[in-house]
Amino acid sequence: MNEGQEIEAQFEELLNFLKTEQMNEFRETFLALHIYEQGQFYQSLEAEDRERVYNYLSPKELADMFDVIEEDNDDMKVYIAEMRPSYAAEMLSEMYTDNAVDLLNMLDKGQMAKYLSLMSAEDASEIKELLHYEDDTAGSIMTTEYVSLVANQTVRSAMYVLKNQADVAETIYYVYVVDQDNRLVGVISLRDLIINDDDTMISEILSERVISVHVGDDQEDVAQTIRDYDFLALPVIDYDDHLLGIVTVDDIIDVIDDEAASDYSGLAGVDVEEVSENPFKAASKRLPWLITLLFLGMSTATLISHYETLVSEASILAVFISLITGTAGNAGTQSLAVAVRRLAVSDEKDNNFKRLIVSEVLTGVVTGAITGLTIFIVVGIWKQNFPLGFVIGMAMLCAITVANLAGSFIPMLMDKLGFDPAVASGPFITTLSDLTSVLIYFNIASIFMSYFT
Amino acid sequence: MNEGQEIEAQFEELLNFLKTEQMNEFRETFLALHIYEQGQFYQSLEAEDRERVYNYLSPKELADMFDVIEEDNDDMKVYIAEMRPSYAAEMLSEMYTDNAVDLLNMLDKGQMAKYLSLMSAEDASEIKELLHYEDDTAGSIMTTEYVSLVANQTVRSAMYVLKNQADVAETIYYVYVVDQDNRLVGVISLRDLIINDDDTMISEILSERVISVHVGDDQEDVAQTIRDYDFLALPVIDYDDHLLGIVTVDDIIDVIDDEAASDYSGLAGVDVEEVSENPFKAASKRLPWLITLLFLGMSTATLISHYETLVSEASILAVFISLITGTAGNAGTQSLAVAVRRLAVSDEKDNNFKRLIVSEVLTGVVTGAITGLTIFIVVGIWKQNFPLGFVIGMAMLCAITVANLAGSFIPMLMDKLGFDPAVASGPFITTLSDLTSVLIYFNIASIFMSYFT
Repeated sequence: MNEGQEIEAQFEELLNFLKTEQMNEFRETFLALHIYEQGQFYQSLEAEDRERVYNYLSPKELADMFDVIEEDNDDMKVYIAEMRPSYAAEMLSEMYTDNAVDLLNMLDKGQMAKYLSLMSAEDASEIKELLHYEDDTAGSIMTTEYVSLVANQTVRSAMYVLKNQADVAETIYYVYVVDQDNRLVGVISLRDLIINDDDTMISEILSERVISVHVGDDQEDVAQTIRDYDFLALPVIDYDDHLLGIVTVDDIIDVIDDEAASDYSGLAGVDVEEVSENPFKAASKRLPWLITLLFLGMSTATLISHYETLVSEASILAVFISLITGTAGNAGTQSLAVAVRRLAVSDEKDNNFKRLIVSEVLTGVVTGAITGLTIFIVVGIWKQNFPLGFVIGMAMLCAITVANLAGSFIPMLMDKLGFDPAVASGPFITTLSDLTSVLIYFNIASIFMSYFT
Repeated sequence: MNEGQEIEAQFEELLNFLKTEQMNEFRETFLALHIYEQGQFYQSLEAEDRERVYNYLSPKELADMFDVIEEDNDDMKVYIAEMRPSYAAEMLSEMYTDNAVDLLNMLDKGQMAKYLSLMSAEDASEIKELLHYEDDTAGSIMTTEYVSLVANQTVRSAMYVLKNQADVAETIYYVYVVDQDNRLVGVISLRDLIINDDDTMISEILSERVISVHVGDDQEDVAQTIRDYDFLALPVIDYDDHLLGIVTVDDIIDVIDDEAASDYSGLAGVDVEEVSENPFKAASKRLPWLITLLFLGMSTATLISHYETLVSEASILAVFISLITGTAGNAGTQSLAVAVRRLAVSDEKDNNFKRLIVSEVLTGVVTGAITGLTIFIVVGIWKQNFPLGFVIGMAMLCAITVANLAGSFIPMLMDKLGFDPAVASGPFITTLSDLTSVLIYFNIASIFMSYFT
């Protein structure tokens, strides 16, 4: 609380320095802030005040701050566009390559080319190399600012290399050891360098069992490796073991967060990352799913329409439609979530497909039986009609079992086919289960029709 | 692929060493593995082979491996129980304190007391101090193995302290600077120590703007701070600024993952962390929610029952019940997911409650209007009955708007009341929205009854 107020006061002071054009006072206070706080302040500014910031800060100083800003695309584009092109280009080349690439990827092709052409050839080529890696691969999240050296030297000379690169490297806590062809042969942590004697040879203390990922590996697998091994960074190599870059733990946290948001979005049938307060924009994001499901729901309506005579003879049947479809939908959603989670955390890629489906269906039978028994008793007593209770209960049992089958089978099938199982959304499963539930319900009802009417 | 096979071969070799009681060969190969891989191997063993492992490895060697095992409770209990008590106690005191505390928390009180009594007084008191922090607070995830020193010394002497503590500290990449009373006054990264001259005083280069968290802070807030600032560790202090411990980034990744799983579980109305292949166990986890929702669903059935005469007069109405409840339920789930996410990522604790609800309801009106218009046309043409289409369309518009209101209002209310908004589950919202949708549908239908029959 107190800390928050202190920062608030400093932000006000900073804004005042900007408005009154006190450059030196602004620089002193601003640069004493943590870069995350610098970013918070910068993002709170109006365009005209940001204009002054560009005059007061060097591209390098702004780059440090931009390295930690996580902002949605539109604002970032505005920021870049309002800087002088040469200033923006210099800032981009001062940023960590992975972050500069993320930023450039938000711009359109023409803009991207303009900034690249304004950079030094070396910086531009480093960025261009990263630009062509596919989304969501290790290559797309790696950075090229790492420390590497050859094994044939002492700890003392390695520490000297480290000192010189400490300012530009994204992490100096791991040093990667390569051969003359830049092939990764080992790794040493800074901890190891520090506890060993200055005259020790690197070749004696390096760990040759270096865990690495391939540049084309899925970023989720990279995240899993970093989590399993509790690493702070992981080297990225090509098919020939050449060291291309590193992925650091802060990027991995973003990956884990993105994946969680996308699983969550999948389950809800809406992109939760796109938070807009404009109702028309928000509606345009949600309608595609809703309308698709509406048409799937139409088939359920058509099916009920088929049984309209049955309903007109026994209107009591209409009373329980939503109860059966609703409960089966809930059970299907549970199955789906469990299956998606199991697929996400399981290490072995070829999960025992059949065993998991069988277990899920059996769970459906057990939950269905207990839920069915409950509703049998409730309806029997409520409507004084136990045959009707039996029909509802039986329908519930079957509908829940089928919903569990669908809820587990569909994501597993998608996983088998190489799709992300999380896109099998909850609304899709419930709408599909409406269809099967209604079919089951009316078939059971028509068989036992004479007993309960 | 190749790497996997290589490890598999090594695991087989290791197992063979165990079976043939070749202790030295086992130790050499086993200790060359990364501790994560050691854990994988250990967890693949039968009880009798694990018995041999305890004879071949020192408590310290086993502790290093146990520090990275993430295993569900039951297995961990078995592991500890099969070790000699003094061996287990020594292993626990060799582990990082936070991990030892996690492990001890899985045991029952009597067991915990036994192991604590077998440790040295110093180790036991360090663990006991951490044991009484509440779940999900900074205190419960912090460790006490950090490096701290006073400002009144040179970089050279600080590096000397670091070298001596490198073996026991969980991270040496941040050094915390304290005063005589152990109050936190600053921080230096190892990077800063390395790039500065050996004779520089710590007091000259320490950063006094040290970001810290309070020991009672929610672990989610700690995670957010580490993510925002891209820290590798964060100091934990008490009310009087005394340094109590540090939270490291690997623990934060687990926190982020747990929170994501719990949000996901909330949306699905099932605990996705509890993955059991036993259908009875799984069913017992899912039934409480299903049965609760079944009774909520009963009120919908009762409501429809109230309109049974209406349905018997116009059985066509039954055809569209599940379409309207289903679509409104889908829209409500979307609203819920967006609201929960917005509450999770928003920094300002006092979100503009009213503005967000209004925006969500307006989104409901827009999606409802378009969905309603679509179904009006479809039903009008399909059933050659535009008045009926109008009733369905109007009901759809109102039901979706109300579902969006419920989907956003309920989680926000829970947040306001201090509960986790994520426990407002998807199934609960859809079941609730079934009730309101049916009410809206039959009321609109009875008003326009004479026009479409």
